[in-house]
Parts: sequence; C-alpha cells; structure tokens
Amino acid sequence: MAISLSKTFLSIAHQVFPSEKCRPVSFSGREPQLQRTTSMGFATRSLRMPRVSSKTSGSLFSSIDELDKETREERRVADVWREIHGVDDWVGMLDPMDPLLRSELIRYGEMAQACYDAFDFDPFSKYCGSCRFTPRQFFDSLAMADHGYVVSRYIFATSNINLPNFFKKSRWPKVWSKSANWIGYVAVSNDEISKRLGRRDIVVAWRGTVTRLEWIADLMDFLKPISSNKIPCPDSTVKVESGFLDLYTDKDVNCRFCKFSAREQILTEVKRLLEIYQLEELSLTITGHSLGSALAILSAYDIVETGLNVLQDSRAVPVSVFSFSGPRVGNVRFKERMEVLGVKVLRVVNVHDIVPKSPGLFFNENVPLLLMKMAERLPWSYSHVGVELSLDHKNSPFLKETGDLSCAHNLEALLHLLDGYHGKGHRFVLASGRDPALVNKATDFLKDHYLVPPYWRQYENKGMVRNEDGRWMQPERPKLDDQPEDTHRYLKQLGLASHH
Amino acid sequence: MAISLSKTFLSIAHQVFPSEKCRPVSFSGREPQLQRTTSMGFATRSLRMPRVSSKTSGSLFSSIDELDKETREERRVADVWREIHGVDDWVGMLDPMDPLLRSELIRYGEMAQACYDAFDFDPFSKYCGSCRFTPRQFFDSLAMADHGYVVSRYIFATSNINLPNFFKKSRWPKVWSKSANWIGYVAVSNDEISKRLGRRDIVVAWRGTVTRLEWIADLMDFLKPISSNKIPCPDSTVKVESGFLDLYTDKDVNCRFCKFSAREQILTEVKRLLEIYQLEELSLTITGHSLGSALAILSAYDIVETGLNVLQDSRAVPVSVFSFSGPRVGNVRFKERMEVLGVKVLRVVNVHDIVPKSPGLFFNENVPLLLMKMAERLPWSYSHVGVELSLDHKNSPFLKETGDLSCAHNLEALLHLLDGYHGKGHRFVLASGRDPALVNKATDFLKDHYLVPPYWRQYENKGMVRNEDGRWMQPERPKLDDQPEDTHRYLKQLGLASHH
Repeated sequence: MAISLSKTFLSIAHQVFPSEKCRPVSFSGREPQLQRTTSMGFATRSLRMPRVSSKTSGSLFSSIDELDKETREERRVADVWREIHGVDDWVGMLDPMDPLLRSELIRYGEMAQACYDAFDFDPFSKYCGSCRFTPRQFFDSLAMADHGYVVSRYIFATSNINLPNFFKKSRWPKVWSKSANWIGYVAVSNDEISKRLGRRDIVVAWRGTVTRLEWIADLMDFLKPISSNKIPCPDSTVKVESGFLDLYTDKDVNCRFCKFSAREQILTEVKRLLEIYQLEELSLTITGHSLGSALAILSAYDIVETGLNVLQDSRAVPVSVFSFSGPRVGNVRFKERMEVLGVKVLRVVNVHDIVPKSPGLFFNENVPLLLMKMAERLPWSYSHVGVELSLDHKNSPFLKETGDLSCAHNLEALLHLLDGYHGKGHRFVLASGRDPALVNKATDFLKDHYLVPPYWRQYENKGMVRNEDGRWMQPERPKLDDQPEDTHRYLKQLGLASHH
Repeated sequence: MAISLSKTFLSIAHQVFPSEKCRPVSFSGREPQLQRTTSMGFATRSLRMPRVSSKTSGSLFSSIDELDKETREERRVADVWREIHGVDDWVGMLDPMDPLLRSELIRYGEMAQACYDAFDFDPFSKYCGSCRFTPRQFFDSLAMADHGYVVSRYIFATSNINLPNFFKKSRWPKVWSKSANWIGYVAVSNDEISKRLGRRDIVVAWRGTVTRLEWIADLMDFLKPISSNKIPCPDSTVKVESGFLDLYTDKDVNCRFCKFSAREQILTEVKRLLEIYQLEELSLTITGHSLGSALAILSAYDIVETGLNVLQDSRAVPVSVFSFSGPRVGNVRFKERMEVLGVKVLRVVNVHDIVPKSPGLFFNENVPLLLMKMAERLPWSYSHVGVELSLDHKNSPFLKETGDLSCAHNLEALLHLLDGYHGKGHRFVLASGRDPALVNKATDFLKDHYLVPPYWRQYENKGMVRNEDGRWMQPERPKLDDQPEDTHRYLKQLGLASHH
C-alpha cells in the first residue's frame, strides 16, 4: 500500500516549522478515523486531532488542526481491514508506515495496556492479583467506552507454576483466591464499532508482567514439545518455552478461578462467541505486551491448530496477533508451523528492549541457517515468528536518555513511538497527538521540561476509604466472577471435557 | 489531678475481656468532650466513641460503647483549660494520664500533623514546597472543619539557609517561588469552639521535615547567642542551635513569600490577632513536630521575651508549647530563661526516637551538674526545656517490631501512642478509639493483619488531571497568598520596621 504525500499537510508543516527546511514526511491525509471513536483509555482526544510536533517540544500542546476528512475516511477501516489484519503479511504497510495500520495498532496496544491499568498489583491490597473492575464496567472504568468493545470473559491463571516473578500475591492472608491471578480478558466489538471495522472483532488481550524485568530470569530457557502439554500438534519437534506453555495450560482444580486452565477458558469462550456471531463477518485479534505477547502467540496458534476458527460453513475466521515487546516463544519449527497455519503476527518492538531478545540470546533466527539446523534440536534455539516493526526510542525528542531497561520495555512508551513513526529515516512527528504524558504513567522517561511527574498513575490513598464510622479501610469489592456455568459444555464440544 | 476508676467501665471491660482477669486501667469516665467536636483530620469519630482494646487486636473495630456523659463533660475544658495549658507545669496530670489533657494533646498534635498533610512535598509538582490549599479552605480540605479553627495566615521560610534536607524544591524550574517553603500557619478558634475551650485560642503550628531523618545531620551542632540574630535577650549566654535560629530569622527580600522572616510573620500576626481579641480571655498555643517543635519553642520564647503577649490592660496571655518528637533547641541558659519567662512546654516523645536525643548526644541535661557547668560554654551542650511525656511504641500491640527510625519519629504513631497511654505501667488501651489506620499514612508500622497498606496516603494520579482536550496535566492552583499588606504597620509597632 503506497502512501501519498499530502500537499496540504506539507503546507501546514511549513507553518509549524517555518525556520527549517521542511523535509517531506510520510504523512497521509487519510487519517485514522478510528481515533475519533476511541478514547484511548487514559488518553482522550478531541474530535479534531491535534498533531504535536517534536520540534516544538517546549510544550506538549502545540498542535496543528487536522483537516476534516471524516466523511471520506469513514469507510476505510471497513474496506481494508483484512490488510490491516495481516492477510498480506503487512507488506508495504510498514515503511512508510500506513496511518490506518498505525492507529489500529495503537488501538489494540491500548487494549493490552488496559490489562495493566486494571490489574490490582498492590501487594497490600486484599484483592492483589485480581482485576479492579467487574467485566461489565471494565472499559467504562478505564475511560475506554469509546473503544466500542464489551468484555465477555475474564481469564485467570494459576500461580502454581515456576514463574515466581510473574504472579502477584497479597502480603495479607489471601482473601480472594489462594492461587489465581487475573491474566486478561476476551472482548467483542459492539454493533456500532463492528460496522466501522467491517466485521465483528473478537479480541483476546493478555496481561504481561507488572514486576520489572526479573521474570526473564525465571524463564527455564527450556523448549518443550507443544504436544507434551496436550495441545494438539502433528509434529513433536514443534516446541515452545516451557514456562509459557505451563502458564497457558496449568490449572488448579481447588480454585474456583483457575479450575480451568487459561487455555480452556480461552478456547471455550472463543467457541461460544463464534457460535453467537457465526453468521457475521468475523475476526479474531489477539494482543498482549511482554509475557502477554507470548500468551497471545501461543493462544493464536492453539485456536488455529485445533481448527476452532473454522465455522460450520467452513469459513476460516482470520486470526492475527498484535504483539508488543514480546519475547521469543518457540523454536524455528514453531515459527514454520505458525506460517503453515496462516496465523499472522505483527510484533512491535523497541530496539533497545532486551525482552524481545529473550530467551535464546545465542541461538535464534539471526544465526546462519546451517548453524541453526545444527542447533535445532538443542533446547535453547529460539525463533521469532511473524513480522517485526522495529522502533527506536532515541528517535523521540520527547524522551530522555536513560539506562533504565524498564523504560525501553514500557508499553505506553512503545505506543508513543508508534504514534510518531512514519517509516525508517522519517522524522518523528506525532500522528494523532496521542498524549505523551501517558508515557510517564509508570516510567520516568519523559523529558523533565514537560512537567509530567514520573510514575504518576496511582489511586487516591491506595484505595483506602472511610467507612460510616469514619475509619479508614479497604472497601470490599463486588463478588468476583469466576468461571461461567457453561464452560463444561463447550469443553465437551471441544473434546476437552475428559480432563474434568 | 487524681483519676478515679470508673466502676462502670470495669464492668464493661469484663465483657470485652471475659477470659482474662481485668486489670484495672486508669480510665476515667470523664471523657474528653472535645473529641466530639473535632474530626481529627483524616480521622473522624462517631458521636459515641468506640474504645478499641489492644487485646482484641484481631480487628481494629472491636469496641465498647462509651457511656454518654456529654452533659457532665460539656464544661470541663472551659473550667480547667489553664491546667491543661500548663499553668501548674502539668504536675499530677501525666501519671496517671489526665483524659482531658490527652485529648487536647491529640487535638493540637493533629493541628501539627495538618502541616504535613497539606504540604506539597512532591518534587515533581509545580507547587513543590507550597501548601496545597488556600488558607480559607485549609481545615475543610483536610476534613478538620470540626476542629473549629480558622487559618489567619500562612508562614513561609527562605531556603537560603544551611539546612539542605529540610527544604523541598521542585525538580522543575521553579514556578511559584525561587526560595520559599511553606512552613506553618496561624489559626484562631471560632466562637463556638472558643466557648467550649473557655478562651479564644490562637494557635501557631510549625511544619517539621518531610524528608526522613537526614536533616539531623545538617544541624551544625553549633549553639549561637540568641541575641546575635537580633532577637532580644538580656543574657548573651542564652544560646540556641544556629540552624533553628537562622531558619526562624532569615529572609529573602527578593521573594514575595519570604521577604519577611518567619519571625516577623509570626510576631506581626500574633500582634494583629491579640489586638482584635484583646477584650476576650485568650491563650497562645504553639505546636510543632520534629524540627517544627524547635521552631515552636523558639517562637514561644520570642513572643514572651519581646512582651508581645502582654495586653494593653497588662494581662499576660499564657503562652504554651505542645511539642512532639522535638530535638533540643538551646543550652541550659535558654532552658532557664524559658522558665523565668514562664513559657510552658510539654514535650511528647517516643523513647525510641533519636530526634529528641539530638543535638547534643554527649553533653545534655542528663550529664551530672558539675560536668554540665564545665561544659556550659562549649558549643555542644544542649538542654531540653519543659516537661517531658515519654511514651514507648513497644507498649502498643497494634505496632510491629521495626528498626525503622522514621517509624519511631512519626507523628501519627505518636498520637496513636498518646491515645493508648494511661500512665506508666498501665495497659495500652485506646481511649478514644482514634483510628489506628492513621499510623500507616506515611509509615509501615501497623501489624500486617490489620490490612492497612503502608504509606497509604497519596493523591490520585499525583494530582494530574485531564484538561478540556483530554490531556493529562498538572492543574494550576489559585494564586498563592503572600504577605498581608499590613505587615509593615505591625513591624513598625514592634520596632522591627527599620530592617525594611
């Protein structure tokens, strides 16, 4: 998809940077219409999107008004959603960067970010490890109602696996669950947004790690045949990192939240939703950041390998992954199997982030093929899957120099980089004016002169409230939903019921 | 003042501790009536005060109803306020602990605590170093309207002195002031509370340090004649710690907030208020925690030494200091001079706190008199003033073992200890049921099983709000009050105007 350079934009750009030669930037007049319908969680945008130039960085609020092309853009995502979804492996869409793809990536990235914003990771909370909100209130509570999705199910995982730095446990005697952690959600686009998107979109969003980067050290660095955890696979040399696999398939029959594995929860829910919407045009979009990206890739594989995405009328619902800052998941055989199955993966990474370089720092897809072939049967030969979109935080004039690895790994920072990315060698210009203040929600990454406090996202008095006697206490939350009644029925349909 | 043991309370106590022999505690039926009229800042209390027993510590909320003695107690503070204010040096009121004195101490302690709660000490705030609220909204904003006081003036100090760890400076280029820090306030009791108190009470509350304990190291450990900073004193051997003295007397003519010294601000404001209320019964009560206690003692001395508290009709308004966790301020001559002047000081300390042991760890009032006499002229011979009320946090079953010195120094913890104190050797029983959760506002001191998060006091999103464009930013505050117009007039009356 070629991007035409908008003359109008160029002339506007001249007004903004009058003193310098305005180098053409790949900036299409065809602006992402979805930005108007999505409130970006902690961001909101005015109807007319301001564009913030990096060169006027003394203030976050310099902007040029966008020309109003609403009518013309209205039908665009609906027209090209398959390309955005990766049917052609995003060929020609990444350099220069397709504006619609960019805004869609940001939109899915924000749905992954929602997993962090909603997660209660305060070890001093009675509900540590849970989601702060009910499924029904999820997007409203995050000021993301404009995204136009409805959460249909929460996903939980058991912490009885060997990833000590992934799970969050309360400092108190546990009150809501002995072993469960909330790990993501399934959501469906509503009628209005489905119309704009050109299809009913089922989203699975997986939470990553809220601890800094210690969890990388927890990885066993051990590739395990995917079939050994009872995920169907015709080839026992298809292997994935054992920690991810266990996280995906393990359960705890004694816990009402994770008596089904994350896998079982996802498969039954996707099956249920595909049945409900089987007569419509459909897509499955799976997203996640960091470790959540690994689960996104694994679950996407699983859904297609089991044939879950094939409807009764034999239509195959396309399954794509938008991965952010994700590690490698499996070996080269896994990568090849993903390709055979047609699971599309677009991986957005920051080149300075160490997580996408893990595990398999030594034997990976960059090693010459012959050596790779030799190493293939070694447990530490990992390979990335899909297509990479590589960004560099040093290109953003909003960000300061830092040696803090968690900055380079931060999802909000990555979404900021996406918003400023127009192609390799193109100048960093925020396309939608996405609020750079969001970068500092959980980092100290923005330059000081923007006056945005680092790590500013926090709850008033850590959620303590005064009860009717005037005493400060942690309020009770509504009873947490556990697993839906009909999970067994769908497990049976999937041939998985025998495990119960 | 002897405390009679209430038989009614004993019988109630038996119901609460049925399984153990109920040891008599010094617990008077004459409960502090003021608790009903004060909301305790972050605490509030129900009209019927619950008493929380330390022995039922599995829950914070076990309580026994207090008998309703409201009518009988109604006039008590008005009747005995001079004793509470220290006219008899609190003889007989501390062991066993007089319940009215206890509740009054807590009330003044909360007015000192308000200085912390209202202070903006976030280095990433544009208003770092200021008070978060306007004087008019001060007590309302802290939910302390029930205290019945009105702030009449804020006090600022210049940071151009040698106490680097006391002052808070913004990480940003300074926006509200180059060198000022908000350091306390003057307040006056309203008509209603004045009636209950038996007099119009003028309160000066001094803020202490919000940094941990590094400021102790900043102290020069150098005693300086009080007269050398132009505070009148008939005896040049009366000396105080130079850091406290400078903090009290220094100014910055280029700053609209501290173009008058803290001393000048206090003296003019007290003079103004005494003129307004000169026909009423009056008291001056000065309070402060930590370094704020040093300023409280110094300013109390100053007010009496300059004769400011003597009204036109020759009545001397009693001046008392309620000091919390305060360091030594001056030498033994200073202490003697305070006694001659009749400035009453009640110092509440936690025995495990190192601040009251500073400065002058080696030469102080515990050294034999002869040695003291020899050391008198050495710059490091310090002496405490007034009467000490010594508490021990190990007596509170709510608190955990900790080696954290800032816990032992914490004001909220000290107020908690006061509430449970009934005399030496008496069991720790919360008299008013003051919410123990307050202890953890800025510490990790409460036992874990109370489910109160440590350091729980924080502002939502560090005060960031979304502007009309949906962008996150630090809101502007109303223009900060600087110095009142009429300060010069009062300075002139005080004979201090020549410095300007």
